[in-house]
Amino acid sequence: MDESNDASWFTSRDLFAVHIGCSVTRMEEGYAEAEMEIGQQHKNGVGLAHGGAIYSLADLAFAAASNSRRETAVAINATISYMRPITSGRVRAEARESASNRKLATYVVTIYDEQETPCAVFQGTVFKKGGNAS
Amino acid sequence: MDESNDASWFTSRDLFAVHIGCSVTRMEEGYAEAEMEIGQQHKNGVGLAHGGAIYSLADLAFAAASNSRRETAVAINATISYMRPITSGRVRAEARESASNRKLATYVVTIYDEQETPCAVFQGTVFKKGGNAS
Amino acid sequence: MDESNDASWFTSRDLFAVHIGCSVTRMEEGYAEAEMEIGQQHKNGVGLAHGGAIYSLADLAFAAASNSRRETAVAINATISYMRPITSGRVRAEARESASNRKLATYVVTIYDEQETPCAVFQGTVFKKGGNAS
Amino acid sequence: MDESNDASWFTSRDLFAVHIGCSVTRMEEGYAEAEMEIGQQHKNGVGLAHGGAIYSLADLAFAAASNSRRETAVAINATISYMRPITSGRVRAEARESASNRKLATYVVTIYDEQETPCAVFQGTVFKKGGNAS
Repeated sequence: MDESNDASWFTSRDLFAVHIGCSVTRMEEGYAEAEMEIGQQHKNGVGLAHGGAIYSLADLAFAAASNSRRETAVAINATISYMRPITSGRVRAEARESASNRKLATYVVTIYDEQETPCAVFQGTVFKKGGNAS
Repeated sequence: MDESNDASWFTSRDLFAVHIGCSVTRMEEGYAEAEMEIGQQHKNGVGLAHGGAIYSLADLAFAAASNSRRETAVAINATISYMRPITSGRVRAEARESASNRKLATYVVTIYDEQETPCAVFQGTVFKKGGNAS
Repeated sequence: MDESNDASWFTSRDLFAVHIGCSVTRMEEGYAEAEMEIGQQHKNGVGLAHGGAIYSLADLAFAAASNSRRETAVAINATISYMRPITSGRVRAEARESASNRKLATYVVTIYDEQETPCAVFQGTVFKKGGNAS
Repeated sequence: MDESNDASWFTSRDLFAVHIGCSVTRMEEGYAEAEMEIGQQHKNGVGLAHGGAIYSLADLAFAAASNSRRETAVAINATISYMRPITSGRVRAEARESASNRKLATYVVTIYDEQETPCAVFQGTVFKKGGNAS
């Protein structure tokens, strides 16, 4: 199966990702990337990209990476640190598996602005349900 | 100033909250509530309310509570634990200040489904910029 | 079985807690308290109570609360926010279950200094192994 | 100034690290490593390396990395995910700056057992006080 198809298939099933304009752009074993173009609908009360929008983008990359092995994995929890405000442009999240065992896996997701400056760092853990992700 | 007006004013300025259908419903000193009615646009790839949507609702309650003292406060980071999946109905997030100092404050936000069962727990920290929030 | 005995039995088995001078002081269903008297051995490089010592105290209260139902529960992850430095005196951690399901439970632990001011907030999640904790 | 001296100087000032047997072994700009040899005093109630001991080792590497630029930095909060139990041997924590701004910096710390398997992942944020760390 073609990897880029995997990524668009993964995005299309995720109605919230579609609603807020996030797409998975790359999906490999234990790795994924997602992107979002900041628009007015992503802004918070002070005109910056909303923490919830940034989190949701990171969460999508995390979900894609953690389900990349075609085993169903559900998020247990996640942490995000916001380092730099983002006001516009294309935002990219890159998720990478950091550690795993039979039942759990932890991913670190770095969020970059259009200048490729890291703006936020996300860490999430999934519980592997053991079934088939597709 | 009228407190319920505060809450709707706070929601209206937050374009991402409006876009995804979250509203602040109560806003007091160090405390706030926000709500969201789960629709198809909030679902993830397996038909549950999306982690990013739940996070964004909690984040809105957190933002309202942490800016309730009319001092600008920006989120530094946040953690969320997902305990029970939510599939439909009204979801409510309740944010309460847990500890603070001159520069920082931490809030715990509990997310309840329509049956008032706690489904997720969020903890967020803000940096107080010292200016005026409005 | 006597509840105060439970608490001291729980402490005595935890060699790291004993080594650093932390004790469980109360243990009920879904709730526990632990205490530590700050000494020179708990200080960091700038003379304050060490973040690792505060975390370890919170972690002990969390472990006691999450194993209070005599079902083995293992920590998956935890977050701590430090709000106020502690330099001396008795520190107390209070752990309370916030949400749970069949496999997971999340606890919020508040850490108080001797003046009962909240100084740190901890949130931890356990995986329930289903066996018997004792 | 000699880098290895920096690391041992940093350890020696941290009385809690000394008390529990953790040492900084390497310290560069935005990077540090720390080690601990697991003994009986590091065990929890079920004979595994205690979550508080693992956290404290990660926290030491984080403190060393975040103070490596000789600017005082204080921890605001941290998250740790435990992936694999550790029972014995030398444990190593590696801290790396992930993102930073004028006031804040976030570090990801990976904790390895003696076989160099990643066993835990830690993410911590500091507030830069602007003064001189030494």
